[in-house]
Amino acid sequence: MSERYDIAIVGSGPAGITAAINARIRNKKIIVFGYENLSNKLYLAPKIDNYVGFYGISGKELTKKFKEHLDEMNIDITYERVDNIYAMGDYYALMISDKTYEATSLILATGVQFGKPFKGESEFLGRGVGYCATCDAPLYKNKVVTIIGYNNESIEEANYVSELASKVYFIPMFKGEYDLNSNIEIINDKPVEIIGDSMVKKIILRNSELESDGVFILRDSISPDQLVPGLLVEDGHIKVNRDMETNLKGCYAAGDSTGKPYQYLKAMGEGQVAALNAVSYIDKKC
Amino acid sequence: MSERYDIAIVGSGPAGITAAINARIRNKKIIVFGYENLSNKLYLAPKIDNYVGFYGISGKELTKKFKEHLDEMNIDITYERVDNIYAMGDYYALMISDKTYEATSLILATGVQFGKPFKGESEFLGRGVGYCATCDAPLYKNKVVTIIGYNNESIEEANYVSELASKVYFIPMFKGEYDLNSNIEIINDKPVEIIGDSMVKKIILRNSELESDGVFILRDSISPDQLVPGLLVEDGHIKVNRDMETNLKGCYAAGDSTGKPYQYLKAMGEGQVAALNAVSYIDKKC
Repeated sequence: MSERYDIAIVGSGPAGITAAINARIRNKKIIVFGYENLSNKLYLAPKIDNYVGFYGISGKELTKKFKEHLDEMNIDITYERVDNIYAMGDYYALMISDKTYEATSLILATGVQFGKPFKGESEFLGRGVGYCATCDAPLYKNKVVTIIGYNNESIEEANYVSELASKVYFIPMFKGEYDLNSNIEIINDKPVEIIGDSMVKKIILRNSELESDGVFILRDSISPDQLVPGLLVEDGHIKVNRDMETNLKGCYAAGDSTGKPYQYLKAMGEGQVAALNAVSYIDKKC
Repeated sequence: MSERYDIAIVGSGPAGITAAINARIRNKKIIVFGYENLSNKLYLAPKIDNYVGFYGISGKELTKKFKEHLDEMNIDITYERVDNIYAMGDYYALMISDKTYEATSLILATGVQFGKPFKGESEFLGRGVGYCATCDAPLYKNKVVTIIGYNNESIEEANYVSELASKVYFIPMFKGEYDLNSNIEIINDKPVEIIGDSMVKKIILRNSELESDGVFILRDSISPDQLVPGLLVEDGHIKVNRDMETNLKGCYAAGDSTGKPYQYLKAMGEGQVAALNAVSYIDKKC
């Protein structure tokens, strides 16, 4: 049996780390899933004027301050990508490729996906379009799969899929080294539309087309109701009340994922409130 | 006619200054009412571990950082005490002793009053108990007035009342220099209860009693619905939604005044949201 955390925090942006800091101060056993840069959105911000106390700071500098704060409190970030989270009644099960983590309470600080979905993406979701390649790879044994990858994690997923699929195309949406298995074909073109009939048939790109049985779109964040089945989402944002409670008991949300304005201090205030309410929830259970 | 501000912000604690910074970034014409130390609660905090980016900072140091940020943006704090605010339909009128300020939109960041009201305080409110001595002093011409003062401003109010009343008792609830008119009697005792029949008759203190026609209780913050008549308050906190809107159009609230947890980042996130929504409100009106 896997060890049970008090609180699992998904996301290491301003909301997630604030939740972590406040939960740690309350002596809760936490696990935080995120990225080495904490939040790319923050990290890449050229100049921030409204983080009170640091006028005109760069995103890189502020990230450094945040990391120092986490280090002072011995808070580690787990660099793993959570594929799915299931409400198990008494706890949450977080699925990460071949591992499962368990936590009594959950704080979602997953941010928002910027940019529109591709044409056809929503239409073919579950009919050839997916967001977790490692989850659904077995469906595509000996079939043709296209992966639209936004990050390094998508490379690993592509490699995994390539062991089962007959053919894998990889469309990189980010700059970097693509350490892909040799049987994966890299397509340097921009996806435009996903088409098909009852199932996905083809990906239309600006200058080409790819016949495909499936397409995985591996963005930095997936939509929260796909991450946590049963979670109530309204207009693309997790529905929360002023206590940052979602519709699922013991599950809280904070930051951009709960709605506009997409701002650091708004996110952090929510992360704090989510953490303190998660702490109360746990304490009442004991 | 007095000049019209876009946004009046009442309070200079974390919520108020964050609102001010965000409104200023959006080029709004603002006025911020507050204190030189910004927030005594913050200023006196020995050590703060959850203001992300400044692990273990003292309240004094963090206040200094906040003031530097305000200075960088040329945001001034107006050191005046707002006695009453009236919704005038199209704008808010802020009454300050003999002056009136006007603002299209209002952000209340007044904090919370810690500690219970005195026994009899609520019962005799408006029947001898008041929170604004300068407002109601004329009612006590040639009468006996007791002032329970929590701050330096209460000294000024006591002096003003002493010019009209036949007798003024001053009960200081803070340490400091009491620069009171010579005809004011200082009572070093703890108030316990206010009693009377249809009107206030007497203040019971731990070791004495004071016959009084009126008593002014001059705390750092007064209850928000007394400050803004018509404002909806629930369980002692201003009722707001997730957009920090109160029940009054164009009036927002943020920080401890809207409810627990009483925490800096929660307050600041709310201040930011309040400011951005006030900005939208103003922009839509134009």
